[in-house]
Amino acid sequence: MNGTTGSKVWYIPDGYYPSFSSGKFPSHEAICVLNPAAEDASISITLYFEDRDKMAGFSVVCPAERTRHIRMDQLKNAAGEGVPQGVAYAMMVESDRPVIVQYSRMDTTQAEMALMTTMAYPV
Amino acid sequence: MNGTTGSKVWYIPDGYYPSFSSGKFPSHEAICVLNPAAEDASISITLYFEDRDKMAGFSVVCPAERTRHIRMDQLKNAAGEGVPQGVAYAMMVESDRPVIVQYSRMDTTQAEMALMTTMAYPV
Amino acid sequence: MNGTTGSKVWYIPDGYYPSFSSGKFPSHEAICVLNPAAEDASISITLYFEDRDKMAGFSVVCPAERTRHIRMDQLKNAAGEGVPQGVAYAMMVESDRPVIVQYSRMDTTQAEMALMTTMAYPV
Amino acid sequence: MNGTTGSKVWYIPDGYYPSFSSGKFPSHEAICVLNPAAEDASISITLYFEDRDKMAGFSVVCPAERTRHIRMDQLKNAAGEGVPQGVAYAMMVESDRPVIVQYSRMDTTQAEMALMTTMAYPV
Repeated sequence: MNGTTGSKVWYIPDGYYPSFSSGKFPSHEAICVLNPAAEDASISITLYFEDRDKMAGFSVVCPAERTRHIRMDQLKNAAGEGVPQGVAYAMMVESDRPVIVQYSRMDTTQAEMALMTTMAYPV
Repeated sequence: MNGTTGSKVWYIPDGYYPSFSSGKFPSHEAICVLNPAAEDASISITLYFEDRDKMAGFSVVCPAERTRHIRMDQLKNAAGEGVPQGVAYAMMVESDRPVIVQYSRMDTTQAEMALMTTMAYPV
Repeated sequence: MNGTTGSKVWYIPDGYYPSFSSGKFPSHEAICVLNPAAEDASISITLYFEDRDKMAGFSVVCPAERTRHIRMDQLKNAAGEGVPQGVAYAMMVESDRPVIVQYSRMDTTQAEMALMTTMAYPV
Repeated sequence: MNGTTGSKVWYIPDGYYPSFSSGKFPSHEAICVLNPAAEDASISITLYFEDRDKMAGFSVVCPAERTRHIRMDQLKNAAGEGVPQGVAYAMMVESDRPVIVQYSRMDTTQAEMALMTTMAYPV
């Protein structure tokens, strides 16, 4: 395993944090990062919106040979801000070393959950 | 961030706009576009069908450092036509500068919603 | 638009045709093909299984500038055989000219439908 | 068909084996492998976690011109260990010859199932 596995920049155009939840679980999204290399990876997330300026400063470490499933509903940036609810947004995930990124959403707005997932788009 | 991020042409073979909705939300599809560059992107969408000629002339602007979640049930082309309901179709998304495109569908034909998503296919 | 868009061979490892349906729709899978070029494309589908030899001879035409959403539950090969139900399988989609392929499944085994989709894997 | 189809290493960052099931089916994940080549493929799976060391030693054979839908809830490694339930994890799938890999999850924690799928990320 060398350090060239994966990519350092990944995009996810379809982000949405539902305002409502029901059932056993809260509605949530996760950016799932896998770092198969021998050194820790510093992850930085930027959010893009339809009607306002981008938000930056969301930082997470994914340790060597570990995964991090970053819950977007629990993430705070350096200014203490969280992801806005009920608003369309998009994400850029940057890492200082190559990682692999997948995005998933569980929606429990209604009684029964719905799931969706996709690999993020690497550059 | 330079202008070479992403791609200028993306394809989505599986489009379908359900004729029925129930629950809290209407059934809908979205083409989610992310433009991380410093200049606005002009987006043009073409629809392909199984039994009729393609439809063009659907235009959207995705501003610089913004996302647009294009609701297919609300989109009209230059002739005032919308996406036909209950018919299989496919999409080509063209942009005058590189963007990233993801496709999602929420189906509420039955009482509980179902979700699916995938990155579009870049050329 | 030239003839080099897309790919001539696509793979889908996760095929499954549920034996049961309920609700408003039958459980079904679809191979969605988009042919944006100016000539018709001849599509050939091969099925792979866990415990038996592969099945070939499933043929479909996707006309120029058209899409075909191939319902796997309705497809028959040259020998009149259909896709076996309740059995894990995989698909190879071959075309005589470049196309784009996406795979989707609607499962209505239980009362409320579930959806999943992904781009097929191009070679 | 030559031996260069597909890839020998695939990553899946978002693994999760739900602790609860209901309805007609158990909650489960599957790594779906397709080996279209003329020789058998030896598959090796490694699991990565958020809070513990990786687990290796999960081995499966995907015969020539066959598919294997590897149920993660039934998989045991050489030490007799299975996939931990209720814990975020990620997967690396290695093969001694090129294969194609897709990941799917059926969640039946609540009464109605939810599905999600994506191609794994090839290296």
